[in-house]
Amino acid sequence: MRLDALAQAVGARLVGPGDRVVTRAAPLDGAGPSHLSALLEPRWRGAAAHTRAGAVVTTPALADHLPDDVARLIADDVRGGWGRALRALHPGPALRPPPVGVHPSAVIDATATVDPTARVGPFVVVGPDAVVGADAALHAHVVIGAGAHIGAGATLHPGAAVLDGCVVGEDVVLGVRAVVGGVGFGLDGQGRVPHVGVAEIGAGATLGAHTCVDRATVGVTRVGPGAHLDNLVQVGHNATIGAGVVLCGQVGVAGGAVIEDGAVLGGQAGVTGHVTVGAGARVAAQSGVTRSLPGGATYSGHPAEPNRVRLRRIARLRALVRP
Amino acid sequence: MRLDALAQAVGARLVGPGDRVVTRAAPLDGAGPSHLSALLEPRWRGAAAHTRAGAVVTTPALADHLPDDVARLIADDVRGGWGRALRALHPGPALRPPPVGVHPSAVIDATATVDPTARVGPFVVVGPDAVVGADAALHAHVVIGAGAHIGAGATLHPGAAVLDGCVVGEDVVLGVRAVVGGVGFGLDGQGRVPHVGVAEIGAGATLGAHTCVDRATVGVTRVGPGAHLDNLVQVGHNATIGAGVVLCGQVGVAGGAVIEDGAVLGGQAGVTGHVTVGAGARVAAQSGVTRSLPGGATYSGHPAEPNRVRLRRIARLRALVRP
Amino acid sequence: MRLDALAQAVGARLVGPGDRVVTRAAPLDGAGPSHLSALLEPRWRGAAAHTRAGAVVTTPALADHLPDDVARLIADDVRGGWGRALRALHPGPALRPPPVGVHPSAVIDATATVDPTARVGPFVVVGPDAVVGADAALHAHVVIGAGAHIGAGATLHPGAAVLDGCVVGEDVVLGVRAVVGGVGFGLDGQGRVPHVGVAEIGAGATLGAHTCVDRATVGVTRVGPGAHLDNLVQVGHNATIGAGVVLCGQVGVAGGAVIEDGAVLGGQAGVTGHVTVGAGARVAAQSGVTRSLPGGATYSGHPAEPNRVRLRRIARLRALVRP
Repeated sequence: MRLDALAQAVGARLVGPGDRVVTRAAPLDGAGPSHLSALLEPRWRGAAAHTRAGAVVTTPALADHLPDDVARLIADDVRGGWGRALRALHPGPALRPPPVGVHPSAVIDATATVDPTARVGPFVVVGPDAVVGADAALHAHVVIGAGAHIGAGATLHPGAAVLDGCVVGEDVVLGVRAVVGGVGFGLDGQGRVPHVGVAEIGAGATLGAHTCVDRATVGVTRVGPGAHLDNLVQVGHNATIGAGVVLCGQVGVAGGAVIEDGAVLGGQAGVTGHVTVGAGARVAAQSGVTRSLPGGATYSGHPAEPNRVRLRRIARLRALVRP
Repeated sequence: MRLDALAQAVGARLVGPGDRVVTRAAPLDGAGPSHLSALLEPRWRGAAAHTRAGAVVTTPALADHLPDDVARLIADDVRGGWGRALRALHPGPALRPPPVGVHPSAVIDATATVDPTARVGPFVVVGPDAVVGADAALHAHVVIGAGAHIGAGATLHPGAAVLDGCVVGEDVVLGVRAVVGGVGFGLDGQGRVPHVGVAEIGAGATLGAHTCVDRATVGVTRVGPGAHLDNLVQVGHNATIGAGVVLCGQVGVAGGAVIEDGAVLGGQAGVTGHVTVGAGARVAAQSGVTRSLPGGATYSGHPAEPNRVRLRRIARLRALVRP
Repeated sequence: MRLDALAQAVGARLVGPGDRVVTRAAPLDGAGPSHLSALLEPRWRGAAAHTRAGAVVTTPALADHLPDDVARLIADDVRGGWGRALRALHPGPALRPPPVGVHPSAVIDATATVDPTARVGPFVVVGPDAVVGADAALHAHVVIGAGAHIGAGATLHPGAAVLDGCVVGEDVVLGVRAVVGGVGFGLDGQGRVPHVGVAEIGAGATLGAHTCVDRATVGVTRVGPGAHLDNLVQVGHNATIGAGVVLCGQVGVAGGAVIEDGAVLGGQAGVTGHVTVGAGARVAAQSGVTRSLPGGATYSGHPAEPNRVRLRRIARLRALVRP
């Protein structure tokens, strides 16, 4: 891709030859003349000073820290610019999908409907009455349960499972071995109660590897459109994860909890059952949410409380016991 | 199912027409005239006021908050009643099992024994000398290692693995991709020591999706009968999980630890190696158990201590630094 | 194996008949005359007093607590001696590998290279241009992505996945369903950015069941040689795990973090993005590392701080609120 075209796609100011061509992204210390790299933070200046990259996305303030012959793509919103550059240079998926059509080893129930444009890899299982939409990609070992629906353009990485009756929206990405619709953990004195509900994943959401979204006892466990769940995340039965929510690695959301739109939970944070985290709230890593939290604020600790209050108390307690 | 029969099965008092029929459970706000729903908590009264359910399981105190034409199944033990109603209406498994017999794609070692009533799905692998009992259901991609035993009536959801020499009791349910008998994490200066023991899961226990029970270094890692482990739980080598224990999502139990009968550990709690959590103890979510705890009490914090002591200390510390 | 030969292999002093033969390791309370057991800690004396083992590895101090007819293998470094004894008696792998050759059900791309000495089990998928080295063992359901390299002698347990372009070194062991090279969790305002980098696992490293090492955004996510990662561990994009590092169960290391050589992180500990844990540092279970920590010391708490400082402060705070 020519740098003048790339600068336009990124919305960056180009300092350097517009006809220079870069073919892919690479880190500052591993890049060569046909690679695009990024200098996003001051602490990367050391690697930047010796980079052999053809071009580098950077900020106005950092642009002087690159060798003279490296072209600059200067953006005020440098993180966004770098993301746009990556998308322009690498428009395809991270993992090579199976070819269009159904691999001969796949087991597709006679009552299932698989769009002819879908890509179905080896050892995939599609159950009775399931529907797989146009351009969907089911990598090796994916399992689609009875009556489940996979939206158009969805990508299911190897071993992902969407179980009976569950729904995955358009352009959803499920990570390796992610599970939608496993049996929930609602117990009574006799053990697990039946879980006859389902789970639904909204359009454009992404789930990481080994992330689990349990089916509801009755009704629906929901992950909203555009939500992003990292690896090894647990979403319990009847929970609701709002649109655009971000759940970092190993977060746990217990049964019936509600995470409203746009909230962000740091890694290993936990939310107890039947509480609400308000829209746009930010919950620090490893926090434990034990009661409902209003939206728009930042929380931390166990039990989670407003971050400012907690930090002030910690400072005062530390002052009390100074040597 | 007729409401008079359902009321009898549930042990509830019916207010409404005994010959009305309900076919399945549904949430208050999604139910129609042929559905059974539940009003278990006062905060659900809003949804209850407008429900179109044919009948609702509820408490004496909440029964007045339903529309007149909705039949009531009134139970003092309303959670137990709701569980019994779900079991009566939905006696089958949550996920449709494979049909009886062995799917032609499955790879069954010639020396393995698979009961003719068992259900073996696509791409299942059963190793040498393994035994699969009557009415067991092995969903797609299940792996049974050499010499492993699967009890009668056990259900292994897609991709669950029971590895070499391990034993799963009668009526056990293993969640999607649950692993029984992975190699443990006993290290010495040369790396992982050999793990030549096994893991055994007692009758009626359930393991959630992606839960791991490691094999012992020597001897047996045990999960007791009727224990319930949620998703993404880790049980280390040579640990013992007692009968009826409940381990919520993402709990970790390190090597050699003992969780005695009936203990309950909240989500993301951790237990260090070689300590004992006493029978019937309750450990709060995210707690860290660093030494043995007597049974029968409630613990929290890191390091975990009696909950009452910890709450009192926290209250006093907060009083010290009030503005 | 004769006890005189075993004693020599272990570097232990034998008290008992050198021509006695033991065939395998077993726990003190389950061992018989042909079994080797271990008495490593004083609290095991009760079981030791009644053991029927043929021989027991133990310390000089504990050797008197065994029945007279049990042979002793006495070692000063008793944990190391026990490890050496296990390796001598059980030199093979914990899980029976597939036979040499490619199972007829496996799907191997025509452009892939699989060494003729490799062992490839049922339903394995090897993608285009992938390379599988000599004596490697790919258990059932393993997935090797396009262009990935599997080193000689590596063992991939059932369902492990090494995705496009990723590299696994010689003698690496990947646990059940471990994932190398899943898509990372780098987000910008438009969602996940492309992740065009890879992940590499150094020679002799071991990963537990369900452990995830994400591919880099650009460049490489690295796990160093001889590192040991337990089950359900998360390593984010562009993180670096040094040589010989130990990450216990359910640890999470966020994107771009560096864990230097020989550091040990206890179970459920978390490390935030772009910080460094210094060489040889020890981080207690459940700690939260929020900024870089110098090597060689022990840390605990959230935020993690030197353990000594934290314990002193806790003691003083507790003294303040004594009844």
